[in-house]
Amino acid sequence: MTFTGLWDEIADVGRHPASGGYRRFAWTDADLTLREWFVGAAQQRGLDVETDRNGNLWAWWWPPGWTGDPRNAFVTGSHLDSVPDGGAFDGPLGVVSAFAAVDRLRASGFRPTVPVGIAAFSDEEGARFGVACVGSRLSSGVLTADKGLALKDADGITLAEALTAAGRDISTVGADTALADRVGVFVELHVEQGRMLDRLHHPLAVASSIWPHGRWRLSFTGEANHAGTTSMADRHDPMLAYAATVAAARARAVENGAVATFGRLAVQPGGTNAIASRIDSWLDARAAGPDALDATTAAILADAQWAATADGLGFDWAAESVTPIVEFPDAPRQRMTDILRTNGFGETPVLGTAAGHDAGILSAVVPTAMLFVRNPTGISHSPAEFAETADCLVGVDALTALIRDWDRR
Amino acid sequence: MTFTGLWDEIADVGRHPASGGYRRFAWTDADLTLREWFVGAAQQRGLDVETDRNGNLWAWWWPPGWTGDPRNAFVTGSHLDSVPDGGAFDGPLGVVSAFAAVDRLRASGFRPTVPVGIAAFSDEEGARFGVACVGSRLSSGVLTADKGLALKDADGITLAEALTAAGRDISTVGADTALADRVGVFVELHVEQGRMLDRLHHPLAVASSIWPHGRWRLSFTGEANHAGTTSMADRHDPMLAYAATVAAARARAVENGAVATFGRLAVQPGGTNAIASRIDSWLDARAAGPDALDATTAAILADAQWAATADGLGFDWAAESVTPIVEFPDAPRQRMTDILRTNGFGETPVLGTAAGHDAGILSAVVPTAMLFVRNPTGISHSPAEFAETADCLVGVDALTALIRDWDRR
Repeated sequence: MTFTGLWDEIADVGRHPASGGYRRFAWTDADLTLREWFVGAAQQRGLDVETDRNGNLWAWWWPPGWTGDPRNAFVTGSHLDSVPDGGAFDGPLGVVSAFAAVDRLRASGFRPTVPVGIAAFSDEEGARFGVACVGSRLSSGVLTADKGLALKDADGITLAEALTAAGRDISTVGADTALADRVGVFVELHVEQGRMLDRLHHPLAVASSIWPHGRWRLSFTGEANHAGTTSMADRHDPMLAYAATVAAARARAVENGAVATFGRLAVQPGGTNAIASRIDSWLDARAAGPDALDATTAAILADAQWAATADGLGFDWAAESVTPIVEFPDAPRQRMTDILRTNGFGETPVLGTAAGHDAGILSAVVPTAMLFVRNPTGISHSPAEFAETADCLVGVDALTALIRDWDRR
Repeated sequence: MTFTGLWDEIADVGRHPASGGYRRFAWTDADLTLREWFVGAAQQRGLDVETDRNGNLWAWWWPPGWTGDPRNAFVTGSHLDSVPDGGAFDGPLGVVSAFAAVDRLRASGFRPTVPVGIAAFSDEEGARFGVACVGSRLSSGVLTADKGLALKDADGITLAEALTAAGRDISTVGADTALADRVGVFVELHVEQGRMLDRLHHPLAVASSIWPHGRWRLSFTGEANHAGTTSMADRHDPMLAYAATVAAARARAVENGAVATFGRLAVQPGGTNAIASRIDSWLDARAAGPDALDATTAAILADAQWAATADGLGFDWAAESVTPIVEFPDAPRQRMTDILRTNGFGETPVLGTAAGHDAGILSAVVPTAMLFVRNPTGISHSPAEFAETADCLVGVDALTALIRDWDRR
């Protein structure tokens, strides 16, 4: 099957008819449909499918005569879930490209001598349970089973409950200690989330590092009251401190060369004629290095505390997930740039990224690398996210070359 | 039945177990349960129940031998719906006090010579469909049937659909031209939404006027993008203009001696790691006079436009409902203060209020008046809203005296 044929199979899954964006949240119907698609695509290719203890999907292409567990495998893939009203490429491009690379290798008569794996990690975006990369965090031991299973979605459903409802056995959730033996290298192909390749006129890049980044919950508690009858002076309105904190976040990010975003909040009670009693809000902040990130978040939290105190509000905060800087190891990246050059892709640009990825999490336990495919507008996490098919096919070519090279070593 | 017995019958309806607040939204199950309770309470007292063309409930106590429609009736009551996580008193206190007054009069052997009505108006708070006092606005012709029926809730359900689902005939929705003949006076008893009576050490007040007030929708449209990979300079983030507008609202309200509140917003797409693409927000603003209100809202809208333009955002707004100042007529208020004095309630304070009420809407077509019952904390639209039973019983006494007086005229 062609790349575009594979792509079309999932084009409608979880797509919202009004927004045109994808709503593929972990363990919801859309996600389960994509998992079924993954299993079917693997089976059509004669690959063995394994769902690991944390719900991550693996499709294995065994060397002739191979028995037992994979060892030192070349693994590529990404994730299938999305942010709310996300684009088509963020995640699925890496999985579809992996299947397309296998198709191309099989069509050429290639037979692997070490196992080749295609992985789809669970709940990368964290759109439902608030923590990103839950599947890879659990498997790499960065997130404990207890903490992971207790995560709650907006309806109060825990991850444990969602997994159980999806027929998963939650007693085995936790670190996958065999990961380091099984995976020789994990290469994640991903749509670029920025316009650098467009500026460089190049279809592909390899990643140097992932910026340190995190999510912080900031909660302001005031006093619910009538919007008409409570004088401005008598109010303890958390919306005002929230607004002051949003303004502070922009200023502090600019000061530190960082980025800081408030894109999600929950207002109680949420009526037009009621002063809010409580606002829970979420800060996403990222910077090129840990010092800049710490300076940014510390300043924003101090500004929030100040604004809350001035209006007689309660304020508390928690770091929900903080991911340190990930410097991708030199060896696989160097090898990738060499192969890409040898295979006619020229000098592949090396880019840092401010987006978190499963490859960043897994780098704690296995060698990892990333390939980025050009995004002509730089827009991501939006229905407008886009990559040209021609560029995607270059990405498939690159994966094909990388798998051949891994096998030849 | 005693006042507290009546009160206990509805104490659990629509109460959220976690917040302790009430969620009694128009035409939802909680509202329908309260409507059944109203019908039952009326029937137990031998009153005739009528649901008018707009879903407002009326219970009629007929004079012996009365036939045909009510004429020149004394009507008292309020509403049964609530804001999100509202208190127990706002609305139901007026309806329960009305039934308790009827009980007290019947126990004393009183027989009316003109009809006495108890009214519960539909959807006073506007929590579901965004416009307050829909029932009284439709009946008084302030809101046309076409506009009213087209109102939508957050799930896209129109008022027409909600009414149909509740078994109502929507073909008759519209102005009730008989209202002026049927109702001689409408007296709405309501919990005070402020602390003035607490400061005055008095259990009851009569209303002088309702401040002009309204709701405006402010919508900011930007560009959804990844919260990590989009530099601060490249953003078109509507959250920033929204935050600037919240800050402006406070400043402009203070400048004009008004009140302005943002208590409700909807963020799209609403993900932690996605820059918002659109924010719809609602401004509630009120002032003692129309000039101060106009000055406040015009300045806030100009500030919002400025903030949106600065960030390359789209901005539009609409006045969803604006209610002019209501000066309650002198005659019924004067008569109320006289009766209250004669009946041992002393000099009843006369208070303005910044809260909208059905009595304010109906004053366009029938003589209306309001009684306020002391609220020791001043908190309303909150689970903490409260009134002492002793003060509520003074309110029932007052209604009893007013009905006797109306009948004696």
